[in-house]
Amino acid sequence: MTNDMQFGFSDLRCPTPIIQAPMAGVQASALAIAVSNAGAIGSLPCAMLNKEQLVSELKLLNSHAKGLWNVNFFVHKPPTPDAARELDWRNTLAPYYRAFGQDPPPAGGSSREPFSHAIADVVQTFKPPIVSFHFGLPAPDLLQRVRSWGSKVIASATTIEEGLWLQEQGVDAVIAQGLEAGGHRGMFLSDDLSTQLGLIALLPQLVKTLQVPVIAAGGISDANAVRSVLTLGACMAQVGSAYLLAHEATTSTVHRLALQSPAARHTALTNLFTGRPARGIMNRLMKELGPISELAPAFPLATAGMMGLRTFAEQQGNGDFSPLWAGQNGCLAKAGSAAEITAGLAQGALSGQPRQLG
Amino acid sequence: MTNDMQFGFSDLRCPTPIIQAPMAGVQASALAIAVSNAGAIGSLPCAMLNKEQLVSELKLLNSHAKGLWNVNFFVHKPPTPDAARELDWRNTLAPYYRAFGQDPPPAGGSSREPFSHAIADVVQTFKPPIVSFHFGLPAPDLLQRVRSWGSKVIASATTIEEGLWLQEQGVDAVIAQGLEAGGHRGMFLSDDLSTQLGLIALLPQLVKTLQVPVIAAGGISDANAVRSVLTLGACMAQVGSAYLLAHEATTSTVHRLALQSPAARHTALTNLFTGRPARGIMNRLMKELGPISELAPAFPLATAGMMGLRTFAEQQGNGDFSPLWAGQNGCLAKAGSAAEITAGLAQGALSGQPRQLG
Repeated sequence: MTNDMQFGFSDLRCPTPIIQAPMAGVQASALAIAVSNAGAIGSLPCAMLNKEQLVSELKLLNSHAKGLWNVNFFVHKPPTPDAARELDWRNTLAPYYRAFGQDPPPAGGSSREPFSHAIADVVQTFKPPIVSFHFGLPAPDLLQRVRSWGSKVIASATTIEEGLWLQEQGVDAVIAQGLEAGGHRGMFLSDDLSTQLGLIALLPQLVKTLQVPVIAAGGISDANAVRSVLTLGACMAQVGSAYLLAHEATTSTVHRLALQSPAARHTALTNLFTGRPARGIMNRLMKELGPISELAPAFPLATAGMMGLRTFAEQQGNGDFSPLWAGQNGCLAKAGSAAEITAGLAQGALSGQPRQLG
Repeated sequence: MTNDMQFGFSDLRCPTPIIQAPMAGVQASALAIAVSNAGAIGSLPCAMLNKEQLVSELKLLNSHAKGLWNVNFFVHKPPTPDAARELDWRNTLAPYYRAFGQDPPPAGGSSREPFSHAIADVVQTFKPPIVSFHFGLPAPDLLQRVRSWGSKVIASATTIEEGLWLQEQGVDAVIAQGLEAGGHRGMFLSDDLSTQLGLIALLPQLVKTLQVPVIAAGGISDANAVRSVLTLGACMAQVGSAYLLAHEATTSTVHRLALQSPAARHTALTNLFTGRPARGIMNRLMKELGPISELAPAFPLATAGMMGLRTFAEQQGNGDFSPLWAGQNGCLAKAGSAAEITAGLAQGALSGQPRQLG
């Protein structure tokens, strides 16, 4: 271990304390590779990839990433389809479709598969340095398979109870996902949103309670924020929104424009786009239906009904029906290369006194 | 200015970067005096004091506090009484009263007066070093009166818009009240709870946007947290929950026991106790009515209906109907003298590298 490789967890070492958060829908392997090559941990979101895409992306990462990398999977329980509820959802959205001169799509359809032995068959070939999970962990036999390749396993906790549960299952590190984080809440032991904690509450509680290292996530937007979470005892910082305007991200034009507009100051947790609460910039649909609605079918069944609306609106250059995922500091994101963004975040991580105002 | 007086704002200087948060209902001048004498800024919550109490408390502070001190007032608009709504509220609470063998109290009654010229007449004699306001600021003529004595004026912002508004009115510093904070949300330009930000989002946004110094509040539970908010650009840290178990606080027995129990891990914003959202430990009433209810009359009119229930339950040693105000890190509070708590918070504020895990 040399002086410039002093961050990490388990026996992984990284020159910077930064993990780029996996962000399904706004990035592929290009961002993960660029971040890895810039000295941080690059992450590939895999929840929405089919087998061919997964193979192709893993080949790219495996050949081009010179540093550490992470592949992320969802481990939700597939919901019991509920035809009546899905029909209600289509009927709720129907007036919006008609305003575009379209019929709402038929019910049914899912866009996200949980991690499985079939997916593990693909991943196994590549033995990723890190595999991360959202919404809990896979079943013990499947988890054991991942660990048997030597991949480190990390997963998100949003409460002390979830952190303790993950530690018992043998994860190498726990990600403290503060309420500020963009995208899906990783919560899996409760669906009560009042249990969710700001990072400055969740992180110290997990650090004091757990024996495994804790990675901080949520609202970490610049080098000062990285230093502040290290001060609070995090081993690394997982950063998502600050990469949304990276040249290598595939963030859509409407999403990029929303992030750079005053609208980005107001995000909310919403279940309208997928069926599970996720943080995004408040837009027309969230305002009109309320960001959390009992009408949205269970995750991920709400997604299919929204797809057409999103496409029609984005063709007209608006994000009224798009999931504009962003954390509470997404408004501070700046455009640049992943290398520039990573260097900015890591700056002064090792040194520097707290700023004193006189 | 000497080396050991390097924190503060405007031309005030303090040996530690700590302001004890004013906490109505759980403290009087004794805590503020002890904190002031320990080298931090002690605060007196005045919103629930009558004129005689205010004079008496200010005399005590003025004679015994050797350091800086702050007096805090609410500046809410008095609500229009709504007899029908208050009756509905009494009817909602009636079954709980009957379970204690009691009748619900008649409607009416208020326990909190906003800051006024009559109150200013009292305060003026004492010229407090700092006057802080919650829920906005008093009218310009009244604000000018406070400034004319030489008192520094600070107030809470929960959004960028509120921070900019306070700066325009000429405050000496803005308190960034993160969503983690216990007690009443200071929000005054919006009542939409989805606008409220975790401290790691709110603080950097205010620091980057405002010219006036920013004080951090919410979830700051120990010396590492104090250092982390200084790293994020705060000039000082306002700390509430960490003082709830101070020997000098008047925190009730049921409140102290709740803070030291696992229940303290789960707080929520609730309007049931006063009519405005405030963070407290989830208890029976919050679970049964839902923490946010449209039934609760406007602030502060919800309070009177709850008083009897609270008293009866506390006599039986339970906090089912008590406002158990606490921040999201209230569960980390430790018992001790105010001097010990202050020294613990200030420890290493000036020095120390971010902790590096190897």
